Amino acid sequence: MVNVGIIGLGNVGAGTVQILTENAGQIALKLGFPLRIAAVCSRNLENKPAPDGAFRTTNWREVVDHPGVDIVAELIGGTTTAAEIIHAAIRRGKSVVTANKELMARCGAELWDQAIAAGINLAMEASVAGGIPIHAVLREGISGDRIHTLYGILNGTCNFILTEIERTRAGFADVLAEAQRAGYAEADPAADVEGYDSRSKLAILAALAFGERILPEDIYTEGIGRITPVDFDYAHQLHHTIRLICAARRTPQGLILSVRPSLIPQSTILAGVRGAYNAVWVRGEYGADTFYYGRGAGSHPTGVAVVSDLMRVAREIRSGSPERVSPFAHARLGEYLPIPITFHRSAYFLRFRVEDRPGIIAQLASALAAENISIDSVLQLPQANWRDLPFVITVEPTTEASVRAAVARMAELKFLIEPPLAMPMEQSL
Amino acid sequence: MVNVGIIGLGNVGAGTVQILTENAGQIALKLGFPLRIAAVCSRNLENKPAPDGAFRTTNWREVVDHPGVDIVAELIGGTTTAAEIIHAAIRRGKSVVTANKELMARCGAELWDQAIAAGINLAMEASVAGGIPIHAVLREGISGDRIHTLYGILNGTCNFILTEIERTRAGFADVLAEAQRAGYAEADPAADVEGYDSRSKLAILAALAFGERILPEDIYTEGIGRITPVDFDYAHQLHHTIRLICAARRTPQGLILSVRPSLIPQSTILAGVRGAYNAVWVRGEYGADTFYYGRGAGSHPTGVAVVSDLMRVAREIRSGSPERVSPFAHARLGEYLPIPITFHRSAYFLRFRVEDRPGIIAQLASALAAENISIDSVLQLPQANWRDLPFVITVEPTTEASVRAAVARMAELKFLIEPPLAMPMEQSL
Repeated sequence: MVNVGIIGLGNVGAGTVQILTENAGQIALKLGFPLRIAAVCSRNLENKPAPDGAFRTTNWREVVDHPGVDIVAELIGGTTTAAEIIHAAIRRGKSVVTANKELMARCGAELWDQAIAAGINLAMEASVAGGIPIHAVLREGISGDRIHTLYGILNGTCNFILTEIERTRAGFADVLAEAQRAGYAEADPAADVEGYDSRSKLAILAALAFGERILPEDIYTEGIGRITPVDFDYAHQLHHTIRLICAARRTPQGLILSVRPSLIPQSTILAGVRGAYNAVWVRGEYGADTFYYGRGAGSHPTGVAVVSDLMRVAREIRSGSPERVSPFAHARLGEYLPIPITFHRSAYFLRFRVEDRPGIIAQLASALAAENISIDSVLQLPQANWRDLPFVITVEPTTEASVRAAVARMAELKFLIEPPLAMPMEQSL
Repeated sequence: MVNVGIIGLGNVGAGTVQILTENAGQIALKLGFPLRIAAVCSRNLENKPAPDGAFRTTNWREVVDHPGVDIVAELIGGTTTAAEIIHAAIRRGKSVVTANKELMARCGAELWDQAIAAGINLAMEASVAGGIPIHAVLREGISGDRIHTLYGILNGTCNFILTEIERTRAGFADVLAEAQRAGYAEADPAADVEGYDSRSKLAILAALAFGERILPEDIYTEGIGRITPVDFDYAHQLHHTIRLICAARRTPQGLILSVRPSLIPQSTILAGVRGAYNAVWVRGEYGADTFYYGRGAGSHPTGVAVVSDLMRVAREIRSGSPERVSPFAHARLGEYLPIPITFHRSAYFLRFRVEDRPGIIAQLASALAAENISIDSVLQLPQANWRDLPFVITVEPTTEASVRAAVARMAELKFLIEPPLAMPMEQSL
């Protein structure tokens, strides 16, 4: 028997307790031994699940110190108490399972080094894309491959909002309000819609995929607040759609990392990811394209990730097999260090809102020409219901630096109602 | 250092050697130690890859017996010599990695029991859906879940043929000939197009997913040879498409297993699987829907699966952590034993080819009514280029047994040019 202490009985913790309890028989058959909840901790124990015979406390230290606890599940989130819990568990030589993306994105490499030094196991499947076992895939399933590119749709709130704008052509604010009512968006939606949640998740996945130390700050991040229904009209005309794409790409100069609204071809399987789902698309040198899809959050999908991690760690404990190599920064070569987004090369979609007058295209075209950017197409759909005049210029592959320089030149143009919205068109999918 | 002996240098063996050689540096960093090719065996060694310093032989026993070999990779396929190799390796206490679907589908449970008794490791990621790490997913990634339904598109040849018929509306024979020219189909395509290759793969995945002993004979199997372009016309009218679907479903009576052409909604992510790709869709009680997609075959994608398995087994060897629980039949409860396909309940698509005359619909409808089957729709598209008159009746959910009884009644009807083609319409996707 291996014994688990669960700290945090919120959404994920409650799901974990439920699965460990209801599915105990099958778990024991798969493992060859039972996995028992020995202790639980929550700030408030009223109305919280009470597994048979488990020690219950409001003080997390009592779980970490409990002599019957072999694995500590840190399910409270945040970066302060959660870090204390994990440090305390490591000091006591106890293995840890966590669902904490912020902490793993920021301190994963250090925590892993400490875990290895202490001879314990650490697992974090639930920290990214809850229901998708992407850690198992990157750590084991395709570990023999050399990954070139990883694309993710890692925030269910943003994907729900974008696909609702696409489906209904309602505006961002209305769809966000609907998402909040439906429970798909938080009362304070900033971390989701501004891309910071996605950024933490990409930092973890890129570290696993490329073996480099990646921090959230290494990732260029842009939210979805500027996306309007008309952007989908133009994207569809180009046989594309718009998603908040988390991307990590190996280039000869280094890794280019970004979280930003991007155009992707409608024919790609990633374009089929709608609503609050998550997905990860990986291109390897040998295995070529693989794709993984599932629920990104929720008590049960994330609970499955935690329980699957607990099972793996329990197996390792029974085998006396502690962590030996960090999944973070195993390369330690500096071969693919992050480089600025300005190096990114892509076709771009530029959407303008202008006051109608003669010579607009000529002046925008001059700004692009001055940066040696070639225009691919100029699109203008009839728009009955817009005060201003949104239209689109797509440009042939160029660098982000050139696009930014051209956009800077356009800042002087008085007919622009707002700065141009520039989005890359991802062609390698 | 852990040493590998590779038996079989065909398509998969050559890919494995190439990846182990070219990617050796990254593999060593991920493992914390090198993985070396100590010996290779092929019936013909001319023009075969020769890793530095590896022992080369045409006699597989010399690889199994080689004192420097820790893990034997069986990559020759088939069920006779391959079984001898694996038995010999187990007897010598050596771990085994295999890509052999027929052997694992038929003897996986016994081989695993022997491996556990001998204290070695066995791995078979490459045996199903080469580039998709579905074994890692089922064994580790979502091991905490309780799986209800598993759908797969597991044969790239069939999926290529079906999606080409869909794309070009060419007939089966023409598309098969094209697939043979393009290298997507074997000279003797029977194992692929009649569904037997898919059947072996489903037997393995269903065993892993449900923990029951499943043999290929437990799976109702039907090939794609009767699918015509007009079937896609009718399917599209119903907002569906047609794929060779491998399905395993838990029901209160037991497991229902089938490989057969089926209608699936165009809106489902499984319908986006085109060409020679494979995919697996899993519905769990807690994690809900997850979906996995990638190349099903090929030297490199399957090589990645073999190399990733070698890495996992090498880690286990270094940890002294042999197999302890069989992934096959771990349940041993008989709780979800396979039951006949006649229990399957679904809506059905029935396509008829008839000599035109009055009263056809009335007689077909009587046959359905006699089995208490309700008609959902009658569809007839204008068909300029058909001698006969293909049309479709869809029926409301009923059992396979009832559909078969109705089809048997129809056998007497002289206006039918061929027996009706009945396909389930999968609604739970």
